[in-house]
Amino acid sequence: METGRIEHRIEQALQGALALAEADGAPPRLAAAMRHAVFPGGARIRPKLVLSVALACGDGDPPLADAAAAAIELLHCASLVHDDLPCFDAALLRRGVETVHVAYGERLAVLAGDALIVLAFQSLAAAATASPRRLPALMGIVARSVGMPLGIVAGQAWECEPRVSLAEYQRAKTGSLFAAATESGAEAAGRPGAPWRDFGQWLGEAYQVADDIRDVASDPAALGKPVGQDQALCRPSAAADLGLQGAMAHCRGLLARAMAAIPDGRGAPALRALVRAEADRLLPSAITAEIARLAA
Amino acid sequence: METGRIEHRIEQALQGALALAEADGAPPRLAAAMRHAVFPGGARIRPKLVLSVALACGDGDPPLADAAAAAIELLHCASLVHDDLPCFDAALLRRGVETVHVAYGERLAVLAGDALIVLAFQSLAAAATASPRRLPALMGIVARSVGMPLGIVAGQAWECEPRVSLAEYQRAKTGSLFAAATESGAEAAGRPGAPWRDFGQWLGEAYQVADDIRDVASDPAALGKPVGQDQALCRPSAAADLGLQGAMAHCRGLLARAMAAIPDGRGAPALRALVRAEADRLLPSAITAEIARLAA
Repeated sequence: METGRIEHRIEQALQGALALAEADGAPPRLAAAMRHAVFPGGARIRPKLVLSVALACGDGDPPLADAAAAAIELLHCASLVHDDLPCFDAALLRRGVETVHVAYGERLAVLAGDALIVLAFQSLAAAATASPRRLPALMGIVARSVGMPLGIVAGQAWECEPRVSLAEYQRAKTGSLFAAATESGAEAAGRPGAPWRDFGQWLGEAYQVADDIRDVASDPAALGKPVGQDQALCRPSAAADLGLQGAMAHCRGLLARAMAAIPDGRGAPALRALVRAEADRLLPSAITAEIARLAA
Repeated sequence: METGRIEHRIEQALQGALALAEADGAPPRLAAAMRHAVFPGGARIRPKLVLSVALACGDGDPPLADAAAAAIELLHCASLVHDDLPCFDAALLRRGVETVHVAYGERLAVLAGDALIVLAFQSLAAAATASPRRLPALMGIVARSVGMPLGIVAGQAWECEPRVSLAEYQRAKTGSLFAAATESGAEAAGRPGAPWRDFGQWLGEAYQVADDIRDVASDPAALGKPVGQDQALCRPSAAADLGLQGAMAHCRGLLARAMAAIPDGRGAPALRALVRAEADRLLPSAITAEIARLAA
């Protein structure tokens, strides 16, 4: 089945990247901290998007698509490690286990994040020997989605500004890496990435709104991390701005826009199915029922 | 004069990279923290090496050499910002002014380091449109020198291990980025980088030993940062391992090896002059006299 093959390719690509970092001479505790940050994974939704779009575009260079998928997931993992640091969220749990700074200390958590960022670019460059002409564009797409002025690091930095717009914050903090996932999937396959950007952007924003909702309405055991953190940390939140029912409606609207933004072609049905499955996973009936109960 | 032109190219390339990060939509405090980390600079020895070697190799693609120089300096600045964090050196002063975490807070210091790492790869990729075939090798050289298993992040991580060899620590923490500077200067100019690697590696190790010596024997006002930090932080140090006079002899030996490793060619005399000037700057006569006095 296609989904199983995609999942296998993602885990293989991530294992290959980590193997680069764990080669002879590596300081063992940093290598272990990096592995802890990447395995076992969460939903791997970003690399799934990369490969799903690459397949929809003919998958013209599978190793390059795999490397782009791994790069984007490594950058996501790096951002989680740094966001969990004591100076930010001081989070103790992530994906149901200790966060990196709890398990390995703050210093190795800073370094693990740094090393994962570098590894993302390194593994992408290493996979581009067959199609070097695709590398400048791919690197640009990935780097812009993570860095300044509009990537996830910029999104996180809006938490340190006195004023912030919720839309800009969510666009940078989550939408940007999703947009890079769909765009880079197409570019890695040798097709223009731009037509694929909106699909990722809308899906990423829907994902962030769903995260805000789950932060208010979930059971922490099911979520694998604490709830109520947005309010406790005074973070911008769609649930706080719009109310739970308003946020639900906003999330459904964003998912509909994502669906509508999928370019036509033989890969479109599989991508629509992916979005529907994600929607069910992000906002399961238990949560929608709970929100209806709270509103009653 | 050649030195002045090189310095001008470096500052222009760094300004160009920072301008990418400061474009519309950037969170202003993070943009300011990044600028604080990069300007005004220190000795800019690493980017000087990149451009000096590129010139010795014919400087076949000046924008690419400039971007490699900027990338390596941005990565150096990122490592200083993270090394200065409270969980590592808790340093208050750098280059005579407040460190980033003192001026902007710990969260923006973490993010500034992250964003500078991303910016390094982004600006390198952006400059490779004319010579995309050079990009995979260049990216690999730069990424390996910063990441795992043997780059500067790995070097810093050895401070978190129970046992460490001084030579491995210094090779990763300082030698690696110097070796990438000389190697990438040649590659950016379209020449093989490997013959240039040893020159950078030896010079970088000499630089680290000189730094250890100055940490023991300098005046903090002249150094622009506190002294006595290696001992206070239990860091591996050539001065502690070999004594001041032994470390001086070791440093001179490394400088001689660096000098001998400069490949022959019409650029060799300028590079030898650069090494001599650096040797005088790193170990000025005031320090060598002070060491002689202490030994008497």
